[in-house]
Amino acid sequence: MLQSTRPQAAQKAANVAIVGATGAVGVELVGCLERRGFPVASLRLLASERSAGRRLGEHVVEAVSIDAFDGVDLAFFSAGASVSRTYAPVAAANGALVVDNSSAFRMDPAIPLVVPEVNGEALPAGPGIVANPNCVTAVSLMALGPLRALGAITRVIGATYQAASGAGAAAMEELTAATAAHLAGEPFTPKVLPHPYAFNLFSHNAAVDPDTGYNGEEEKVMAEHRKILGQPDLRISFTCIRVPVLRAHSMALTVEFDRPVSPEAAREILQAAPGVRVVDDRAENRFPMPLEASGEEDVLVGRIRSDLSDPEGRTLALFLSGDQLLRGAALNAVLIAERLWR
Amino acid sequence: MLQSTRPQAAQKAANVAIVGATGAVGVELVGCLERRGFPVASLRLLASERSAGRRLGEHVVEAVSIDAFDGVDLAFFSAGASVSRTYAPVAAANGALVVDNSSAFRMDPAIPLVVPEVNGEALPAGPGIVANPNCVTAVSLMALGPLRALGAITRVIGATYQAASGAGAAAMEELTAATAAHLAGEPFTPKVLPHPYAFNLFSHNAAVDPDTGYNGEEEKVMAEHRKILGQPDLRISFTCIRVPVLRAHSMALTVEFDRPVSPEAAREILQAAPGVRVVDDRAENRFPMPLEASGEEDVLVGRIRSDLSDPEGRTLALFLSGDQLLRGAALNAVLIAERLWR
Repeated sequence: MLQSTRPQAAQKAANVAIVGATGAVGVELVGCLERRGFPVASLRLLASERSAGRRLGEHVVEAVSIDAFDGVDLAFFSAGASVSRTYAPVAAANGALVVDNSSAFRMDPAIPLVVPEVNGEALPAGPGIVANPNCVTAVSLMALGPLRALGAITRVIGATYQAASGAGAAAMEELTAATAAHLAGEPFTPKVLPHPYAFNLFSHNAAVDPDTGYNGEEEKVMAEHRKILGQPDLRISFTCIRVPVLRAHSMALTVEFDRPVSPEAAREILQAAPGVRVVDDRAENRFPMPLEASGEEDVLVGRIRSDLSDPEGRTLALFLSGDQLLRGAALNAVLIAERLWR
Repeated sequence: MLQSTRPQAAQKAANVAIVGATGAVGVELVGCLERRGFPVASLRLLASERSAGRRLGEHVVEAVSIDAFDGVDLAFFSAGASVSRTYAPVAAANGALVVDNSSAFRMDPAIPLVVPEVNGEALPAGPGIVANPNCVTAVSLMALGPLRALGAITRVIGATYQAASGAGAAAMEELTAATAAHLAGEPFTPKVLPHPYAFNLFSHNAAVDPDTGYNGEEEKVMAEHRKILGQPDLRISFTCIRVPVLRAHSMALTVEFDRPVSPEAAREILQAAPGVRVVDDRAENRFPMPLEASGEEDVLVGRIRSDLSDPEGRTLALFLSGDQLLRGAALNAVLIAERLWR
């Protein structure tokens, strides 16, 4: 739990809007604001025309429009890059603090891209747009950020085990339905994702660069690591794979430093890092699992060891699991908002 | 299909014994021998006392004993390391060619450890024991072996996505039952594996070395790569993870060479390699998937690209899927037998 970043009780309350309120991340945004006691004066839930009129608890969903941000102090966007490109500048021009969960502005040099525990100093003092990173980036950096205390990070190699939630609520439903059909011996035609998902896994479905062979998800993750760490030349490679897990991303990371590093020192640093829970019990064979990370604010970090393929001892191997909808999206956005609204 | 290694029709037929015939690999051994037209004169199915008397097709399973190998020309062992340690030397002393799928003899310097396409030259001329590698090793080396044509391999980093079958038929049943219970909202207590398996993944359950933090599966895989490649000092690191997939292992590999290498040259080499099928369609986003590899003799190889974290261009990134029960066990064993029996 991130007690230290919780807002003060006496704080002024904000008029909040959530764009994409009916999506998997939108629902978690509402939950995070409530659970963390964010001072909300009013909450406006916005979505596409199609979802307008739908009730979510005590709220009625409204269609997003250029007039929807009047009087809004804080706007969360989680409805895809094109909605963000259209409406986030409108909200910001109306004086709102905007936290955008889409990829629309992440690589814009004028827009801060922030994991609060890692580069909170990049947050602006006044209104404007702040970008929330890709879910893999946000989970990975919860470990990599604090490990910079060991030395400069010179190379990162990652292989991911990504949950269905990264492709939205419909993909989570498709995984469940496809698996039920498989167990019943019935045919199932995937509609949300391009490949069979029951008891299967596949390379992330983002478009693949015909020249480099990296897909769009991997390109995002690599570019965002460089931007948030402030290392434009960081040597980094990711392989992004979707696995039949519902809502937490896992990843195997190989992290090289500019000097020899010890796994014991890494473990101590991670144990003290906010937003991280070390799960690294060699005797009991207990390490991070996505089922245990699901619904947790903390990123689970384990398998912390010296990489035996580096005889110089400059490389660590790690395994992480973090809730894709929380740390990977809604929680990170709310943590940004807590700092902006202070 | 590996047409070139099929035995000739005019070949002498062998008296064959399979120890562990009722296990997941044992069943596949029987299937592989039939499907590949191995010249079998007689087939003796052996297992523990508990399975004796059980019928498998036209055969009645017998209990393994020191007398069970009389007249046997070729014995496959797949009943765990302790059964192999007890009975494989008995079979070999009786003059049988022994192919052992357990870990009992793999690292014995006197016993060849063989993937036929990679180090077939290590096979002995006469009777004795030959060890079949760990399933991850066998799948990985189907790609790494031929890629040595590009240059010497200097470093390998692997992250695996391992199927339930690696822990036997009972683990496959547990994955199915746990998933059905999860979908029905019913509780399920795992008995075969130590962690919940439905929509979850976890670090391989082999015991973890308290000093290095590597588990027994990873240690096997690393040591076997070194032995089969004949590179006792190969720099190698694996992270072995079990995923909720039934019977094919996948893995993300980072492979460094002693010189710059091109992904195009790698693709050409792999396209010509026996036992490999290149699945690497960037435009259609079609890459290796375990569901497609299941029941296939070939290992699927794709995501072949130059690793962007190596500015010197000496490193390739790959993603593989291979049937754990076939290439990872039964098929590799039968391919060894085909060469031994020629």
